[in-house]
Amino acid sequence: MDEVKYSQSQINGEGLTMRKEKISSAVIRRLPRYYRHLDDLHRNGTVRISSGALARSMGLTASQIRQDLSCFGGFGQQGYGYNVERLRSEVAEIMGMNRDHRILILGTGNLGRALIENFPFSANGFQLVGAFDINPDLVGTTLGGLTVRHIETLEDFLQEQPANVGVLTVPAQVAVASAKRLAACGVTGIWNFTNIELPQQEIADVHVENIHFADSLLTLSYMISEGQA
Amino acid sequence: MDEVKYSQSQINGEGLTMRKEKISSAVIRRLPRYYRHLDDLHRNGTVRISSGALARSMGLTASQIRQDLSCFGGFGQQGYGYNVERLRSEVAEIMGMNRDHRILILGTGNLGRALIENFPFSANGFQLVGAFDINPDLVGTTLGGLTVRHIETLEDFLQEQPANVGVLTVPAQVAVASAKRLAACGVTGIWNFTNIELPQQEIADVHVENIHFADSLLTLSYMISEGQA
Repeated sequence: MDEVKYSQSQINGEGLTMRKEKISSAVIRRLPRYYRHLDDLHRNGTVRISSGALARSMGLTASQIRQDLSCFGGFGQQGYGYNVERLRSEVAEIMGMNRDHRILILGTGNLGRALIENFPFSANGFQLVGAFDINPDLVGTTLGGLTVRHIETLEDFLQEQPANVGVLTVPAQVAVASAKRLAACGVTGIWNFTNIELPQQEIADVHVENIHFADSLLTLSYMISEGQA
Repeated sequence: MDEVKYSQSQINGEGLTMRKEKISSAVIRRLPRYYRHLDDLHRNGTVRISSGALARSMGLTASQIRQDLSCFGGFGQQGYGYNVERLRSEVAEIMGMNRDHRILILGTGNLGRALIENFPFSANGFQLVGAFDINPDLVGTTLGGLTVRHIETLEDFLQEQPANVGVLTVPAQVAVASAKRLAACGVTGIWNFTNIELPQQEIADVHVENIHFADSLLTLSYMISEGQA
C-alpha cells in the first residue's frame, strides 16, 4: 500500500469506517472552524504552525486541537507542528469540499435571494445550479446569474441536471412536501432554513442540516438573561 | 418562602446560580426545541404529556427528557407527566422570553431585510426597535414598519431608546467595528451573521451568538460525503 492509497483509504475507505464511530459530532462541527483558520493562515503566507499557536488563534487548548485532528489521522509532526497548506487541504477533503456538490435553492424570497446573491457557494465546494419559486413575479427573473424556474419544473430539471443538495427557503407550510420532492429526485442533503423539523422517516436517505434562527436567538436570550457565557 | 418566591429564586437567584455549573450548553441548546414542541402541543389543546410521549415527538429518549428538565427543577409528576402549559411557560421564562428584550439590526441588505420582514421577533420575546444602514439608497426607506436610519445616528438613538441586543448583518469588513460600537453603547448580546469571529476580549461583557452559514453547509458536506447521519 503506497502513501497515496493509504491517505485515500483513511478518508474514503476502511480507515475512516473504522474511525467513524469515534468521531463525535462536536469534532465534526469544529472542522469548518479549523478550515477557516487554516485558510486565513494560508492566505497570509503562513507555512507551518504549532498546535499551541493554532490553539491560541482559535481560543482552544493545544491538547484539544491535537485530539481533534488525530481523529482524522495525525497530521502534525513532533517539533515541527502542522504544515498549514497540507492540513488545510486534508480538512477540506475530509469535509467533502472537493466532491463537486451540486446545489439548488427552493424559494427565492428575501432569504433565498440573500443566499443566492451573497453566499460564497463555490468557495465552499458547492456549485449553485438552480433556483426555483412558485411566485409568478419571481419566476423568469435572474438572480446571481441564475434564471428562477417554476417549482413545477423541478423534477424535469433534476433529470437533466442532477443535483445532490437542496436548500429549503420556502414557507413553512410547504417545507415537508418540498423536502419529499427533493428526496424522491435522489437529493441526499437538505440545508433547511424553514424552522420546520423535517420528518426523517419520510426522507430516510437524506441528511438534513438545519439553520434554526429562532433556536439561535433564544439561546442568546438565555445567555443575556442569565449572564451565562 | 412562598411558592412564587421559590420559583423566582430558582430562575434568577441562588437556586439557578447553584445549578448553573451543571447545565451543559447541549441542554441549553435543546431548550428552544422543547419550547417549540410544547408550544405546538399547547396550541393543539394538549393539557398534559408523559415524558415518553414528549420523547417520541422529539426523537429523544424519555430518560434524556427527564434529565434535561430536571436541570431546571423537576416539573413533571410521577404518574401524571408534564402539564404542557406550565412547562411551556417555565421553559419560556428560563430562556428569558419574558424579559422584554429590545433588539436592533445593523445592516439592511438582503439578509437584514429577510430578518426584518420575515422573522417573528416578538413571538420570541424580542421587540425590534431599530434598523441601521450606511447605504443612501436604503437610509430613510421603511422596512417592516421601521424607518432605516443612518448608522452614524446609532449612538444618539441608543441613548434615547436603549436596546440590549444587536443583530449584525453588515459586511464582514465592518463586523468588528460595528460590534465594538454596540458594546460601547451597553448592548449585552450580539446575534452575529457576519461569518467573522468577533474578538471576545474587545467586547468582554457581550454575549455573542453566531449563525455561521458556511460552517453549517460544510457540516452537511461532510455528512453527505461520508454518509454519516
